[in-house]
Amino acid sequence: MEIDPVGRVHTPFETPKAAPRQGYLTEAVGTIELFSPYVTAFEGLDVGEDIDVIWYADEADRSTKRIKDGQKGVFATRSQDRPNPIAITQCTITDVSENRITIEGVDMADGTPVLDIKLSDDC
Amino acid sequence: MEIDPVGRVHTPFETPKAAPRQGYLTEAVGTIELFSPYVTAFEGLDVGEDIDVIWYADEADRSTKRIKDGQKGVFATRSQDRPNPIAITQCTITDVSENRITIEGVDMADGTPVLDIKLSDDC
Repeated sequence: MEIDPVGRVHTPFETPKAAPRQGYLTEAVGTIELFSPYVTAFEGLDVGEDIDVIWYADEADRSTKRIKDGQKGVFATRSQDRPNPIAITQCTITDVSENRITIEGVDMADGTPVLDIKLSDDC
Repeated sequence: MEIDPVGRVHTPFETPKAAPRQGYLTEAVGTIELFSPYVTAFEGLDVGEDIDVIWYADEADRSTKRIKDGQKGVFATRSQDRPNPIAITQCTITDVSENRITIEGVDMADGTPVLDIKLSDDC
């Protein structure tokens, strides 16, 4: 199936290697730029709310099935190298302005495509 | 970008409408059937572990941007109707056998394509 990004995220991390391993390890701030057809889909979210940002790790190696010298399958990890490199980061909204959403807790490289945004479940 | 399912999930729910609204509302049991190239990616996961099952809601209306009479954007919800209908359900592994993984806590319709499996974060 075909997936089209709804936006992209701007972060302080120039490359995936420069980014933290998981979002909960950081308080780094980034900005989601929503592409114009999707701005209306954001209505109802506001500062202070937690969202799950679903993003596409576009530098991932999609042929990877095992890591750690072949000892572990990628499904037993949260490595970005996996057949469908769809990643999830829970972030907190700190500002909303037209098509730009400022969020805390980013772990993506700058320019990463955003596939979806969901109001977080309580957990 | 193009996404190819790594398997499909068999559940007691014939249609999306028959499935619970969220997985944490149910103890329903299902089985993930991994397609053969991806069985090796599952090595290292075992009974009792929690996994995030990333799946594709193939009956979703991808043109939907607002719901509830237009009052709420879909990103402010967890509705399946959204531009990229990628859903996430945390399930517990109860059995593993060759290419079949039995899981508890399913909320997908029978036959739903599975895009990815990740070891859950602690939360």
